[in-house]
Amino acid sequence: MLRGLVQVTPPERVTAIVNTADDTVLHGLRISPDLDTVVYTLAGAINPETGWGLAGESWQAMEALERYGGLTWFRLGDRDLGTHLYRTHRLSQGATLSTITAEIARAHELELAVIPVTDDRIATRVRLAETGPAGEAGTEIGFQEYFVQHAHSVPISGVRFDGAQGAVPAPGVLDALDRADAVVIAPSNPIVSIGPLLAVAGVSDAITTRRDHTVAVSPIIGGAALKGPADRMLRELGMECSALGVARAYRELASVMVVDDADRDLAPAIEELGMRCVVTPTIMSGSAEAAALARVVVESVS
Amino acid sequence: MLRGLVQVTPPERVTAIVNTADDTVLHGLRISPDLDTVVYTLAGAINPETGWGLAGESWQAMEALERYGGLTWFRLGDRDLGTHLYRTHRLSQGATLSTITAEIARAHELELAVIPVTDDRIATRVRLAETGPAGEAGTEIGFQEYFVQHAHSVPISGVRFDGAQGAVPAPGVLDALDRADAVVIAPSNPIVSIGPLLAVAGVSDAITTRRDHTVAVSPIIGGAALKGPADRMLRELGMECSALGVARAYRELASVMVVDDADRDLAPAIEELGMRCVVTPTIMSGSAEAAALARVVVESVS
Repeated sequence: MLRGLVQVTPPERVTAIVNTADDTVLHGLRISPDLDTVVYTLAGAINPETGWGLAGESWQAMEALERYGGLTWFRLGDRDLGTHLYRTHRLSQGATLSTITAEIARAHELELAVIPVTDDRIATRVRLAETGPAGEAGTEIGFQEYFVQHAHSVPISGVRFDGAQGAVPAPGVLDALDRADAVVIAPSNPIVSIGPLLAVAGVSDAITTRRDHTVAVSPIIGGAALKGPADRMLRELGMECSALGVARAYRELASVMVVDDADRDLAPAIEELGMRCVVTPTIMSGSAEAAALARVVVESVS
Repeated sequence: MLRGLVQVTPPERVTAIVNTADDTVLHGLRISPDLDTVVYTLAGAINPETGWGLAGESWQAMEALERYGGLTWFRLGDRDLGTHLYRTHRLSQGATLSTITAEIARAHELELAVIPVTDDRIATRVRLAETGPAGEAGTEIGFQEYFVQHAHSVPISGVRFDGAQGAVPAPGVLDALDRADAVVIAPSNPIVSIGPLLAVAGVSDAITTRRDHTVAVSPIIGGAALKGPADRMLRELGMECSALGVARAYRELASVMVVDDADRDLAPAIEELGMRCVVTPTIMSGSAEAAALARVVVESVS
């Protein structure tokens, strides 16, 4: 979505507010997967096959770690490690995550602002629905254990964002929401990618205030997520797994809901929720499709 | 020295007790340079040109870090990073440094025991003699800042080992000293490599008790250190920079002092200290020379 937005808007006028509840500490290193994926993607450096990590990466450190029988389920490429070393060192110096993220984005020559939703530590905790490889039913595990180690293939019964209620939005977050011509809720996982942003105190209210200028894009197309476990999670948590279900989740926040052509039939029901429904191709298979969608999205609320 | 000892003694009967006061935390990773150098060297994996790090190493993480303007004066190769990631993760799990070191040595298929002198945190602190690039005169800096960042080229007026007095020898240390046929004080820097070992409570006493079976090899040959700043440090700290000066430092601990042929003239003065002086070639330019010296050393007290 961001790749589209920076094509149709001057990049220096775009602010990405990014989830940090996926962040984890591994081997003593602070890993911020969503921030890094945003930066690497916009820098054109992302590994296009995996959707994470860097293209043309080497894996010497992981191979050494394998020799020791170390923790290797979370793959950290050698160049990617440079990012985590930098972040961890700067945090130890007292720099905030938002300052560090700006430094990393600048080093990658990005012109847009990339801001973690908060400089405080928030962490997605996932409750297991069944006793299995990940643990006992009812116990909680970290997001990366769920998402990567267990390949989001264990049923869950709950999600919460540890620390979010007491967290303060990072500098620039509320201001960006307040001043934006368009606030775009990206077609990301509503529960674990957008959910933590909304859980940080003040963010949800700031968006609600800008409801007339806020547009959400459904990540669910024809009842399924294009990638990731969003569809499965929605069902497991008792929500309707459709663009309509997503619209219900965002109705207080956004005045416009963008759904794929495949979900044209849901438009009347979505409009009944009090949202305007825009029907358009939403599968961004390339740069041109991303730009076309971004144009529709921005124009819908500008 | 260890490379020689494992040639003349069954390796499984050799225990290396290693300095950890050089250890540091960089980028959140626990780095144990002396332990790693011992393991890598005995595994035949050390970079022969630098004497530290791994041969054939790649530097992707450091190059990424340079892009960010990160801390790169302490060079960490990609494969070497695997060791630090492993150590840091295991420490976070509550494993002791000695357990982790044994695991790392085993992964490198070493048969000798490599033991950190203590599982407690000790840290060499170096006091600056002059105000300069490293800081104000009289202030202290960490060992790696002195040794690597400032290439041991700033004058010093003192060295202390933070935490050593309260540190407990790691499991196996006192037992190895107690049972060894020969206790060998290697030709390492007497101040910052051997000094911390002796500063850990109980170690010096344990060696003194075995004085008849303890032999020291002088790292100073003809008034100079073969490598590193030992000669400079000895002078700056007001000690005599010669094999005789080294003998004075070790006289209570060792009954035999091994000096190089070049220092033959110092033998009578060393014997006057109450030590037996063995004169032999001590420059270990290769494996054969190391074995020859090790044989002389071990036989001198066995």
